[in-house]
Amino acid sequence: MARSEGLICKLCLVCSVIVNLFFGLNLYVGRHGVWGWKWSSDEANVRGLSWSGKAAAEAESAAAQECSGHGRAYLDGVVVDGRPVCECSTCYGGPDCSLFLPSCSANADGGDPLFLEPFWKQHAESSAVVVAGWHRMSYSFSDETTLSKELESQLRRLHSLVGNAITDGKYILFGAGSTQLLNAAVHALSPHNSSLPAKAVASIPYYALYQAQTEFFDSADCSFQGDPAQWKNATNTTGDIIEFVTAPNNPNGHLNEAVLHGPNVKTIHDRAYYWPHFTGIPSPADEDITIFTISKLTGHAGSRFGWALIRNEEVFQRMNMYLQLNTMGVSRDTQLRALKLLKVIVEDGGREIFEFGYKTMTKRWDRLRKTLSVSNRFSLQKVPPVNCTYFQKARDPTPAYAWVKCEREEDRNCIEILNAAKILGRGGSVFHDDDRYARLSLIRSNDDFDMLISRLESLVSREDGVKIMQS
Amino acid sequence: MARSEGLICKLCLVCSVIVNLFFGLNLYVGRHGVWGWKWSSDEANVRGLSWSGKAAAEAESAAAQECSGHGRAYLDGVVVDGRPVCECSTCYGGPDCSLFLPSCSANADGGDPLFLEPFWKQHAESSAVVVAGWHRMSYSFSDETTLSKELESQLRRLHSLVGNAITDGKYILFGAGSTQLLNAAVHALSPHNSSLPAKAVASIPYYALYQAQTEFFDSADCSFQGDPAQWKNATNTTGDIIEFVTAPNNPNGHLNEAVLHGPNVKTIHDRAYYWPHFTGIPSPADEDITIFTISKLTGHAGSRFGWALIRNEEVFQRMNMYLQLNTMGVSRDTQLRALKLLKVIVEDGGREIFEFGYKTMTKRWDRLRKTLSVSNRFSLQKVPPVNCTYFQKARDPTPAYAWVKCEREEDRNCIEILNAAKILGRGGSVFHDDDRYARLSLIRSNDDFDMLISRLESLVSREDGVKIMQS
Repeated sequence: MARSEGLICKLCLVCSVIVNLFFGLNLYVGRHGVWGWKWSSDEANVRGLSWSGKAAAEAESAAAQECSGHGRAYLDGVVVDGRPVCECSTCYGGPDCSLFLPSCSANADGGDPLFLEPFWKQHAESSAVVVAGWHRMSYSFSDETTLSKELESQLRRLHSLVGNAITDGKYILFGAGSTQLLNAAVHALSPHNSSLPAKAVASIPYYALYQAQTEFFDSADCSFQGDPAQWKNATNTTGDIIEFVTAPNNPNGHLNEAVLHGPNVKTIHDRAYYWPHFTGIPSPADEDITIFTISKLTGHAGSRFGWALIRNEEVFQRMNMYLQLNTMGVSRDTQLRALKLLKVIVEDGGREIFEFGYKTMTKRWDRLRKTLSVSNRFSLQKVPPVNCTYFQKARDPTPAYAWVKCEREEDRNCIEILNAAKILGRGGSVFHDDDRYARLSLIRSNDDFDMLISRLESLVSREDGVKIMQS
Repeated sequence: MARSEGLICKLCLVCSVIVNLFFGLNLYVGRHGVWGWKWSSDEANVRGLSWSGKAAAEAESAAAQECSGHGRAYLDGVVVDGRPVCECSTCYGGPDCSLFLPSCSANADGGDPLFLEPFWKQHAESSAVVVAGWHRMSYSFSDETTLSKELESQLRRLHSLVGNAITDGKYILFGAGSTQLLNAAVHALSPHNSSLPAKAVASIPYYALYQAQTEFFDSADCSFQGDPAQWKNATNTTGDIIEFVTAPNNPNGHLNEAVLHGPNVKTIHDRAYYWPHFTGIPSPADEDITIFTISKLTGHAGSRFGWALIRNEEVFQRMNMYLQLNTMGVSRDTQLRALKLLKVIVEDGGREIFEFGYKTMTKRWDRLRKTLSVSNRFSLQKVPPVNCTYFQKARDPTPAYAWVKCEREEDRNCIEILNAAKILGRGGSVFHDDDRYARLSLIRSNDDFDMLISRLESLVSREDGVKIMQS
């Protein structure tokens, strides 16, 4: 009995030691850099990790800093005590961003699209990307271009899924945001060595960059001339005209259409906001030049990635030449990341991100409308509902910006009034419009939006004779 | 005896089972996505991985493709059978790049700096970087700029270690390669709204981009006017002059100095090649505008990252405005990666990368000189040795390019002769010089360089009356 028990015990011990040796060896090898340990995941192949583990641990260490939910620690942040510091939201401070700064101004100024940040935190695993030290060191891809073919395919797939642009028969170019592509397009559409430079125009109110770029780069071939209305009856006699058409429009969210038509008129369609987050998609854009940006689609403004759909080969070639001589194309690191982000979107036909974006924007507009509903002093733009082929229903637009009007006779400078109430935004004159208007950004972080609503509530509550429904 | 043996055996078994359970639980948790397994490394904190493991496995899967040592598989390559395909070196083909293409031309054309790729493969662990899905989505850093402060610090540290530029008292700006910064500098130095546009000049032979950019962007404020020599005695009477000074020079490796001096002369120093890979570093550059690029330092041409050191605040502000209106700064993804690469270099004072680069270039120049030593038909540029404060010795330069001269009277077009011998390069006229010269790139991959030597050997061996030393 004791003998057989001893034998069984010894056998068990031998097996157990073998298993221990197996695990132990794996752990030892792993600790020493060459991970022999096999790890599996539903999506990834069964494989061990070797050189990428350290970078992964660094990224997770930075991400693990919670910053009280009112800030972010980034891998490339300033390092204190061996870890990147918390970078706090507006109105929060302290080493862990837990300190609320009650006297600070609500930031509704720039178009930072951080309303989509929670989406990417929810999709951490599928959206992360590892860049190897030797990733794409060359100036060009193997086809001698500076454009990733896989990324181009994903973009075509995306437009086809969303139904917001026809890409068949169009060339695609990448730029450092739509910013670079806008000027590349202006350059490509301007006459060369003509005594009569082209006139660039945009309907008021318009995005300030159009004018700032054209004036600052000061090409001999093009000058900015303001509103297109003045050229409506003279398009054939005044040389080439380049019209910027922004749909939905920044600042007011309207689905603008071209004002000018004729043989001398060329049009650049800026469709940065033509996504289900912000508007119904009545039909796919099918234009000579259409410009999009990842900034207002995925929220990655910092990545500087945009693309243009171009019908005409000569215009494509000339825009391409601009991009080569300006920056030699878009960073391959950026293209790699954009590809990863687009794959997450395309995987489920965009369903998750557009529902997230649409719901977030709808909630924000509901809160904003409710807040201002009791006011006689401030009004919001009215944008008519449009049919959305993507969500298959008619829907109210949920524009990226509120275009606020100060209704009182004496409130001639709306942004000054808002600033005095500790709200940052952009005055109407920035968009070449009346200063009775101001733009407030609704696409920033939750912290910024909450603060905006809080400041607006307080401003409205101080109105004399606020509407009866408040009581 | 049997009893105590049985007891010891049981105790051992219990211990062993506990150890098994510990290892097994770790492995189980790891397999199910939430890596509970603690992994340690000398540099990283002890921590588990969660969301980054899948991306790490994907990157390692792509990198694991060997492509026979004559190609590379990238994470964003075209996918066939679930894996990115091999992209083969010039002169190699087939699905795994094992097929040598004997009739193909040696590529010594572009400045693709792949001679440094093996360095980064050797430093895979320290140079990899993980980009989280929510990394830096904003337009700006928390200080409202588009420039990473950590990256700026690393750059200053690097110049101080290498001794190739004084950064104290200088502003730093980032650009999409030196390409973007060159034009930003031209724009910043040009007069605004003057009736007399600036003249941009560069000593022959010069890098073609200077002229191509200035002419293509066609600013009303500046025009390209070729060689500075023609303005040597007229710098005060002809309006502003902007001189590009390239040191070491592209194509010929000479440490150029400014030709023009005077109150109306402004200088842009292009120091892309001022690193110990290519030249001795006699003293630190201390100039009004000095431009560098990661492309010729780390070999990451595809990342599009360069920087400028600027003395004057007004010039800095105007260049910054250019960069904002052109691209809104450099992609944050690129800045993150550049930071990681620079950290690897700075960590050991640059010792490893510069020794790697210098040794590689020295070996290549030795092979090239030996190959052409038997030729009466082709000669190489002579660049005098300079003192190198970095390596603390006098050394021969090892320029990035061979500037080959065809010596025979009838060989008026050198690049045509090289092309006929299946060698790709750039003719002298591309650099505004005599076509009796041609530029051959010596900084491409090992495969490209080996093929170049092979083609040159064959070309030289066919010469009538090759030098006696060949026999």
